Amino acid sequence: MNLPAAKIRMGFVGGGEGAFIAQAHRQAAGLDGRFELVCGAFSRNPQNTQDTGAALGLPASRCYSDWQHMLATERTLPEAQRMQLVVIVTPNHLHAPVASQALSAGFHVFSEKPAALNLAELLALKDVVLRSNRLYGLAHTYLGYPMVWQAREMVRSGVIGALRKVIVEYPQGWLSADVAGQGNKQAEWRDNPELSGLGGCIGDIGTHAFSLAEFVADQPIQQLCAMLGVHIAGRQLDDDASMLFKMADGASGVLIASQVCAGEENPLKIRVYGDKGGLEWCQEEPASLIHRALDQPMRVLRSGVGQPWLCAAATQRMRLPAGHPEGYLEAMANLYGDLANAIRGHAQGQTSGHDAPGVPGIEVGLRGMAFIETVIANHRGDAKWTELVCTP
Amino acid sequence: MNLPAAKIRMGFVGGGEGAFIAQAHRQAAGLDGRFELVCGAFSRNPQNTQDTGAALGLPASRCYSDWQHMLATERTLPEAQRMQLVVIVTPNHLHAPVASQALSAGFHVFSEKPAALNLAELLALKDVVLRSNRLYGLAHTYLGYPMVWQAREMVRSGVIGALRKVIVEYPQGWLSADVAGQGNKQAEWRDNPELSGLGGCIGDIGTHAFSLAEFVADQPIQQLCAMLGVHIAGRQLDDDASMLFKMADGASGVLIASQVCAGEENPLKIRVYGDKGGLEWCQEEPASLIHRALDQPMRVLRSGVGQPWLCAAATQRMRLPAGHPEGYLEAMANLYGDLANAIRGHAQGQTSGHDAPGVPGIEVGLRGMAFIETVIANHRGDAKWTELVCTP
Amino acid sequence: MNLPAAKIRMGFVGGGEGAFIAQAHRQAAGLDGRFELVCGAFSRNPQNTQDTGAALGLPASRCYSDWQHMLATERTLPEAQRMQLVVIVTPNHLHAPVASQALSAGFHVFSEKPAALNLAELLALKDVVLRSNRLYGLAHTYLGYPMVWQAREMVRSGVIGALRKVIVEYPQGWLSADVAGQGNKQAEWRDNPELSGLGGCIGDIGTHAFSLAEFVADQPIQQLCAMLGVHIAGRQLDDDASMLFKMADGASGVLIASQVCAGEENPLKIRVYGDKGGLEWCQEEPASLIHRALDQPMRVLRSGVGQPWLCAAATQRMRLPAGHPEGYLEAMANLYGDLANAIRGHAQGQTSGHDAPGVPGIEVGLRGMAFIETVIANHRGDAKWTELVCTP
Amino acid sequence: MNLPAAKIRMGFVGGGEGAFIAQAHRQAAGLDGRFELVCGAFSRNPQNTQDTGAALGLPASRCYSDWQHMLATERTLPEAQRMQLVVIVTPNHLHAPVASQALSAGFHVFSEKPAALNLAELLALKDVVLRSNRLYGLAHTYLGYPMVWQAREMVRSGVIGALRKVIVEYPQGWLSADVAGQGNKQAEWRDNPELSGLGGCIGDIGTHAFSLAEFVADQPIQQLCAMLGVHIAGRQLDDDASMLFKMADGASGVLIASQVCAGEENPLKIRVYGDKGGLEWCQEEPASLIHRALDQPMRVLRSGVGQPWLCAAATQRMRLPAGHPEGYLEAMANLYGDLANAIRGHAQGQTSGHDAPGVPGIEVGLRGMAFIETVIANHRGDAKWTELVCTP
Repeated sequence: MNLPAAKIRMGFVGGGEGAFIAQAHRQAAGLDGRFELVCGAFSRNPQNTQDTGAALGLPASRCYSDWQHMLATERTLPEAQRMQLVVIVTPNHLHAPVASQALSAGFHVFSEKPAALNLAELLALKDVVLRSNRLYGLAHTYLGYPMVWQAREMVRSGVIGALRKVIVEYPQGWLSADVAGQGNKQAEWRDNPELSGLGGCIGDIGTHAFSLAEFVADQPIQQLCAMLGVHIAGRQLDDDASMLFKMADGASGVLIASQVCAGEENPLKIRVYGDKGGLEWCQEEPASLIHRALDQPMRVLRSGVGQPWLCAAATQRMRLPAGHPEGYLEAMANLYGDLANAIRGHAQGQTSGHDAPGVPGIEVGLRGMAFIETVIANHRGDAKWTELVCTP
Repeated sequence: MNLPAAKIRMGFVGGGEGAFIAQAHRQAAGLDGRFELVCGAFSRNPQNTQDTGAALGLPASRCYSDWQHMLATERTLPEAQRMQLVVIVTPNHLHAPVASQALSAGFHVFSEKPAALNLAELLALKDVVLRSNRLYGLAHTYLGYPMVWQAREMVRSGVIGALRKVIVEYPQGWLSADVAGQGNKQAEWRDNPELSGLGGCIGDIGTHAFSLAEFVADQPIQQLCAMLGVHIAGRQLDDDASMLFKMADGASGVLIASQVCAGEENPLKIRVYGDKGGLEWCQEEPASLIHRALDQPMRVLRSGVGQPWLCAAATQRMRLPAGHPEGYLEAMANLYGDLANAIRGHAQGQTSGHDAPGVPGIEVGLRGMAFIETVIANHRGDAKWTELVCTP
Repeated sequence: MNLPAAKIRMGFVGGGEGAFIAQAHRQAAGLDGRFELVCGAFSRNPQNTQDTGAALGLPASRCYSDWQHMLATERTLPEAQRMQLVVIVTPNHLHAPVASQALSAGFHVFSEKPAALNLAELLALKDVVLRSNRLYGLAHTYLGYPMVWQAREMVRSGVIGALRKVIVEYPQGWLSADVAGQGNKQAEWRDNPELSGLGGCIGDIGTHAFSLAEFVADQPIQQLCAMLGVHIAGRQLDDDASMLFKMADGASGVLIASQVCAGEENPLKIRVYGDKGGLEWCQEEPASLIHRALDQPMRVLRSGVGQPWLCAAATQRMRLPAGHPEGYLEAMANLYGDLANAIRGHAQGQTSGHDAPGVPGIEVGLRGMAFIETVIANHRGDAKWTELVCTP
Repeated sequence: MNLPAAKIRMGFVGGGEGAFIAQAHRQAAGLDGRFELVCGAFSRNPQNTQDTGAALGLPASRCYSDWQHMLATERTLPEAQRMQLVVIVTPNHLHAPVASQALSAGFHVFSEKPAALNLAELLALKDVVLRSNRLYGLAHTYLGYPMVWQAREMVRSGVIGALRKVIVEYPQGWLSADVAGQGNKQAEWRDNPELSGLGGCIGDIGTHAFSLAEFVADQPIQQLCAMLGVHIAGRQLDDDASMLFKMADGASGVLIASQVCAGEENPLKIRVYGDKGGLEWCQEEPASLIHRALDQPMRVLRSGVGQPWLCAAATQRMRLPAGHPEGYLEAMANLYGDLANAIRGHAQGQTSGHDAPGVPGIEVGLRGMAFIETVIANHRGDAKWTELVCTP
């Protein structure tokens, strides 16, 4: 007998009116019909919270004035009603505090990146995660794209051969002018170290490039040599970063992340080259994975359900036949889908541990934070190379 | 005071396990959180219906053995529970019967295209629609893409000048081999005139190209001269179509639709040229609209919230900043969003009539069916040009 | 013993200062170092002829006041000095008269297309060619591109399977405005039927699309159904053409040629689809040939010396390694190269006949002219289909 | 009165049968009809020299057994016959010796890059150049592309604003395997420091990327931080390079050059970003220059005679209307064209100095060599940043 599949109940911290990323989370979670929004502490402004909740169809009683209150109240509700998952979409400084308390209160957590403001805070959070017996995931959305999984699989299975060179770049242009000074709220808090952490561009998008490189190359970055820049008077945090790096299994590479590449939108791109061929993928055309086998014409592997040359990990992250574009929300929905599977398994006692397979977890967060701190340390110092280590 | 926004309750006819398009509808409807699936008659097979409903979280009581029973039962439920919208995702032969009865039973309808099996049936359905005081929409998904609206607006506002030439093409390759004979269910019913209607390729995708051309060019096609082909022994319906056409306001053009263009995925593409410039849009790269102004370098207008050079009709159909791809499901979700607005307005007594602004309605269906019949008539006859008229 | 390879001596008819296509011919002929310009009748204006000749390094004695004088004088020169090849780059109405007399005077001919003003004149020229024992070539430059030969070879060898569909298009925008009225000399004579012939766009570029289709598909077009347009008041000849066609071995297709596609440059493009796959080539990116094999990821074959997957006919038309772009002049130079081989062979008594292998000859000219007349006849008549026959 | 334009007489050192680059030089020089090959010392092998010369139409008397003999003999010929320009297309170790002696013998020189084997040799050559009153040019072919000049002009004129970021990359794949070990002659000598110099990839293509960056950004690179790699056992010189750099006027950047990017052909690419916009150009699609102005849709500037939005420096380097591809040979021909202008001016006493405007000269050579040595020094040392200075 098939019992109806109950939806997973989620609550949001952050994401009042006007917050793009929170809306994206709600859309991504809604796409496959496996989640239900049941409560939220959307804003420090109670009216915003009430308005947001009303617009989302929530009763006023589950629109909380602050996240502490939300955690405290929800845990007292009957199990069949109470929130199961806390989604954290606040500015960075709240990610770790909310996550820690939510886990401690017995909720699963899906957090925007970075996991914490700095490495010390992150290590403390990691302790909480490890002791919690709850699931913890990070919204590294780009790791949800199916052709990224295809690329990783082609690296893992040896199709590309031993990796030699990795080039990952993430040029954006939205901080080319002083948009914080012109009232852009996100630009404002992202340039405030107390809210954002020590990394500007390097934290916001450099970590995406970094995580993508380690994910696809399937080996960690061990050493790096970095140059940061700030291009607007009064701007506090870096808006531009470039670096050389060396990976664990012999590949070397280049990482570029910038928010002053005027006119660029969001073309996060990775190229990896091994002794048998190369791969190229760009987020703005996410359905195409270019494969250049040594001494063969280039091929373009295209996303689409039912292509026998695609691996299972890629195919199961697709919804549509080839030629029907899927994008950013679908990628994020893939993380939500894997999270749903893990939460369901956890509820049925089948899952232990804090990682949802397929979802970037605390280790990805830890490496990302170590990356930020290592880049800044190298930039400030005289040494050419700095080891990337995940301890303070 | 903001009351929570109740979700619109929808029921599905068709869409048992394995039906791609029904899943797409559910995902699209789920994306923006404005719909709730409350019931379904998913399959002629009761077990499939129960299994599908269970997987979707429906109670068994609202998984109906057939659509007649669903309509009859749902209309007796309390208003706060009962289905408001019937989504029809069956093979073509049921579109009109289900729609007619659903409208007559007081439900709004959102139907897969075509609206009916033939022009006579469609005209009968149109009568029902006009008398129903209910909303009727057709899932012409490609008309939900934001940059299609941008193109139409640039034509309407005169940016392109008086239109001279329209080239619309829709090459697919999935019927290059005898896939129906190899067990592809969709290929099978689509080649059965009793289930599919008189058009094969011309009905399945030719109508998409046709509707896109009339939508973007903002003028009807008046005459056409067509050539159809069938390329597999035993195949009953056309798998390839090409035609010349003349439009009402002086433009002429070419329409190509084929399902034997081996290797092609789904690159529905339109180009329109006027005396001041040209536009080009392709569904496989839906974020880009190429604009060639006469005696200017070409520009690429890119989808993305907040681009001041995009029109309101386009921008309100976007969810994400530039560079974050949106695709097919988002386009369909735009139709669902406009439908939700209209249903909400209807419930509040603010909307009259059967059309949901922004959603292709019965007139688009009528023209699409007239197109199919005109193409077939022209192909079979000796005349060079045949008038496209919406009467049998 | 290797004797130094003497250059082939050529004379130009037409191509005074400001004539783009004549300069292209001289550059293409110069590229591989096998031709030497020795004389010319560049213009009806004697001063233009003298100035042009001087700028090209010719002595005044071999800058002729008219082409009749050039033919008469050159044939009297010692064999080691006299012109061997006449290159005809005048407006269309002189192509056949000059070619006929040049052949009759014992010179080889390389003529801009079309071969003549109309079919009757062309058939007369054909008689002269056949009787002449001299080589006759037509500057169908696009047939000199190496990847066009690769495409043809893949069709011929069965890689694509039995052809089903051919789509060839040639959209330009340069006649979108009344440029003839604004002093554009080429636009002016091209719109004068006495200088240009009966075809406007269809003659200028439609024939390129037609010849490319027959060349790549390796089968003749047998029937067509056409629509022509004129979009500027006072313009005499067509500026836009679209047609359906049927080929000899079962393929059908569409041909689009237009000079009012505002903003388009020169993207002559062909796609052919068979039961085993499809090919796509566009002149604006001539190094890439897209190959979509049925049920395989698409491949991009790229031009470049030394790629083992390219055929000999393609490779011998390349000069550079992959990634070093070759273009229009190189394509034309390939025709000159094949012409040089044939002239050399002819001089050594090894070649008989009037065709230079690899160079479009009088038959291509004949079919192109028949195409123009058939299109115009079909456009003007009521019949849906008109046979393309090479007799008046 | 117009006197016929005599061609410039050139002789080749190097370029026996099978040498791709020498053939490219002859084709490029032949394209515009301004040069005439009159002699050569094509090979150390006298038979190869005679055969090559014969194939090129030279009399045996001007096919010299060695370059010293060629210089000595040619200088004694009557002025109207003797070579004016020496083109050097040998392996690297001969570039400086031949150039020095040729200049001293009164000939102009056009040399393949690098100008010398090392900085010391280059500085000595520079002295010769400066004292010679002859023209000296370097075949930095990529600096002959018209859209590269357009990019530079847009930087110079302030369209892009103050430059912030420069990304230049040159990934090739041809050394991914041990092709030297498999008999590839070029790979062989390029990996021999005595013939090639200290740089492998960095010398062969890194200098192209470097020179392009300095040319387009219109400011010198002052400091760099580099990482080199060697990926084949037994290979002596680097096959992969990546570096960070800082420029004189405040821009920073990244340079990537690699010959182990398996499957890559020759996509030399540059992106520059200023506070008003960005530019992007790639050698494999040389007709397109992407311009992203801040807060405007992206534009694509396309090569083609007569586009009023292109600068004079770009337009005068084009031969064809838009949409007619020009490529590598045309770019090189542009250098030859500028060289011809300067040689003509020099012959008429109008030019003084050793630089041909438009042609990369000894300073470009000097900076390129300093670049190679700086990269190697930085790679070998511990310092993060190394100043790029043009002294040993």
